[in-house]
Amino acid sequence: MFVNALPRYEILSEEAIDVLDRGWRRIVSELGIEFLLPEAVEVFRAAGQTVEDENRVRFDPDFILDCVAKAPREFDLAARNPEHSVHIGGDQMVFAPVYGCPFIREGAVRRDAKMADFENLVRLAQSFPELDSPGGTICEPEDRPLDSRHLDMVFALQTLSDKPYMGSVTSAGNAADTIAMGEILFGGREAIEAAPASISLINVNSPLRFDDRMLGAMLEYVRAGQPVVVTPFLLMGAMSPVSLPATLVQQIAEALAGIALTQLVRPGCPVVFGSFLSNTDMQSGSPSFGTPESAIGVLCTGQIARHFGLPWRGGGALNASQTVDAQAAYESLMTFLPTFLAGANFVMHSAGWLEGGLVSCYEKFIVDIELLRELRHMFAPLEIDEASLAFSAHEEVGAGGHFLGAVHTLERFRECFYRPLLSSTENFDRWSRNGGRDATERAGEIWRATLESYEQPPLDDALRAELEEFVTRRRAELGD
Amino acid sequence: MFVNALPRYEILSEEAIDVLDRGWRRIVSELGIEFLLPEAVEVFRAAGQTVEDENRVRFDPDFILDCVAKAPREFDLAARNPEHSVHIGGDQMVFAPVYGCPFIREGAVRRDAKMADFENLVRLAQSFPELDSPGGTICEPEDRPLDSRHLDMVFALQTLSDKPYMGSVTSAGNAADTIAMGEILFGGREAIEAAPASISLINVNSPLRFDDRMLGAMLEYVRAGQPVVVTPFLLMGAMSPVSLPATLVQQIAEALAGIALTQLVRPGCPVVFGSFLSNTDMQSGSPSFGTPESAIGVLCTGQIARHFGLPWRGGGALNASQTVDAQAAYESLMTFLPTFLAGANFVMHSAGWLEGGLVSCYEKFIVDIELLRELRHMFAPLEIDEASLAFSAHEEVGAGGHFLGAVHTLERFRECFYRPLLSSTENFDRWSRNGGRDATERAGEIWRATLESYEQPPLDDALRAELEEFVTRRRAELGD
Repeated sequence: MFVNALPRYEILSEEAIDVLDRGWRRIVSELGIEFLLPEAVEVFRAAGQTVEDENRVRFDPDFILDCVAKAPREFDLAARNPEHSVHIGGDQMVFAPVYGCPFIREGAVRRDAKMADFENLVRLAQSFPELDSPGGTICEPEDRPLDSRHLDMVFALQTLSDKPYMGSVTSAGNAADTIAMGEILFGGREAIEAAPASISLINVNSPLRFDDRMLGAMLEYVRAGQPVVVTPFLLMGAMSPVSLPATLVQQIAEALAGIALTQLVRPGCPVVFGSFLSNTDMQSGSPSFGTPESAIGVLCTGQIARHFGLPWRGGGALNASQTVDAQAAYESLMTFLPTFLAGANFVMHSAGWLEGGLVSCYEKFIVDIELLRELRHMFAPLEIDEASLAFSAHEEVGAGGHFLGAVHTLERFRECFYRPLLSSTENFDRWSRNGGRDATERAGEIWRATLESYEQPPLDDALRAELEEFVTRRRAELGD
Repeated sequence: MFVNALPRYEILSEEAIDVLDRGWRRIVSELGIEFLLPEAVEVFRAAGQTVEDENRVRFDPDFILDCVAKAPREFDLAARNPEHSVHIGGDQMVFAPVYGCPFIREGAVRRDAKMADFENLVRLAQSFPELDSPGGTICEPEDRPLDSRHLDMVFALQTLSDKPYMGSVTSAGNAADTIAMGEILFGGREAIEAAPASISLINVNSPLRFDDRMLGAMLEYVRAGQPVVVTPFLLMGAMSPVSLPATLVQQIAEALAGIALTQLVRPGCPVVFGSFLSNTDMQSGSPSFGTPESAIGVLCTGQIARHFGLPWRGGGALNASQTVDAQAAYESLMTFLPTFLAGANFVMHSAGWLEGGLVSCYEKFIVDIELLRELRHMFAPLEIDEASLAFSAHEEVGAGGHFLGAVHTLERFRECFYRPLLSSTENFDRWSRNGGRDATERAGEIWRATLESYEQPPLDDALRAELEEFVTRRRAELGD
């Protein structure tokens, strides 16, 4: 877990926030939000909100704010290894890898994702201390049956990693399975209600609609006190207007309406203000990532979430590139650096994202770990005091001298600067002699070596057996 | 010329600035700075400063500040096409390409730079409106004689581009030639003294030393009222201690001492607080670029230059990579985005820099133009008002709808988002069918097409003939 020591970079004036405030109020009160689950609609009706056309809820904006005020500003998320438990909110930043990709890229090969890839990527996430979580659907294991693959995924997350993990959200039943497996691993329902054992991504079916499956999963988690990340899914030009301010107010309206539901169902349940905001490339019609618009969106979202007193999710190492080239790198950093400037509390897609999120890529995973390491170094405290001025080094070296052999340097050379994992400063001759490999080729060697040295974190045999029994039984019940 | 509309990102506390302030005062007063040109030493002696060991000047720090206060906070730099004249200081950012590289990379080929490359790179700088200047030594034309190659370079800068250019600094004589050619192009000495016609890079021979050649060139320019960029050359661990605060105080001491000299020689002469600050890779012993340390250095330098009321130079698209790969891209943006956050007024190395500055690379030039375009878009004003909320688009589309065909979208789709020059959002199938070219391959096509469509800016025949005569005469005088 990383504490961001630099100031937040805020670009919205008070006047701008007032305009946005009027905007989301108008959306929720005049247009309303659709909830395609009768149970959710009833919760709002019972709380006095207006229901139209069966599932459209029109809100009193102040009612939403009253509900939102019940959500905690920060909360803990437990790992089975207590050293890996995290705190979400404040200056903390928690990082999880890519999520939801049907495809894999490994070197020059692009193919369907398999369970073996899922397991390998979880092992990589476990291996790098820069990642706080293996996430959830780190790829979609297409070789496992659709109805029961969530069991395989949660089992892999629980056993191959000892960091906090994300739950399945494809249905209420899958959420219930995730919760049951958390109860086994963490010692029962009371234990996970006291210290949440999973965090789950609830996407809004933007614009202005929550679908029944996501709502079903959300209610399941919230009743168990497990945090959810309520995330409007906004590609401007497709799910929202081609205007960043319009998209920001839509994001507020959708996220706050969902968060209000969580607090009506279980006041005080931990919840995260989510953002997934980029734009459509109006020439190709495809999604763009790592754009100037998405960078500004991240900065604004951070400021907005703090305005409402909520921990927030946003950013990551997003890009639209088809391969691990210069574009993949600059687009990723174009989102990732603003993620740090804005101080996102929960960061999905921190490693491995390629091709607009269709691909989990092994080499990109390593490139992103390098970015994450560099950014964590950059946003660390900068200590400026008398000792840091190293006056004695100047006295020693003098005008026109060289500091490489100075006592001050020799005492500090191992720790004084960031040490790269992937980047090379070899001079051209040496680099050529060593094979002239570019960063992507070197990344290939690093992920393979990391998997080779991976050690599975220990787990009590009885617990493992109980989890296996659960998975076997439920898989049979689901007909797979 | 670009006006940076977002706020500056400042990370130094007042206490930190006080510590740095005490630090540079101690360096200039207790250690002093060496000036290896007797004429410069005499200027300081005559002004009452202490001279030791022939060329070491120990300063009263308040005397330095008194001199520095005479420098303008902002100034104009003329282009022969008045539409391309720029203003340096305030919220303005002026961009020039890479400078000083002995080698060229073109695709997979790395070779000595030639005059033809110099000319091509100037043509590229002229072609892209994102660059305000073709810079100066955009590469070192190794096929031209060392003693007269500055004439060829200045002639190419003056005739292939109509943007402001940088002067030669390798000696007082070369500076005098640059000034003389500026007088020809801009209509005489009075004209260029009234509206400076070149800007020149004066590097400090750090630590704590100005050499005779740079000082000779600097005095030549300053006497003619031509702006100089006084730039400590600081790779931490080599030219400065392995401590960022120590390096920042050294940078202040060196830059302010040089700037004091300019103001003693010609009070009010435009001058820029320069920064070239990165670190040595302590494992390879080679310079690193695009590091967390250099990013923080850029942020701090901006704040420091504003503290002293000076326009400043720093940042760029720096990297240590040997090829145009992911590393080249992320390291470049790791410096370039902070360059914008810090609001650098004059940005060298904005396009084409590769391999720690040894290589001017055609493909990297295009990658950097894309970064520059994106960053200019990101740091543009964000207008948030009632109209930008596009409420009518929400009314039109409704819950669960799609905005691609909305009236609001159709009215704006051409201009609503950043349009990439290089980045691709093609889906995988289309991208594969189109050749599966990565960003670097696509960049190769872009620079070639740009050169093909290049048009030389018009120049009066008599002026051109006069410049040619000057070059021919001086070349002969220099024995080449």
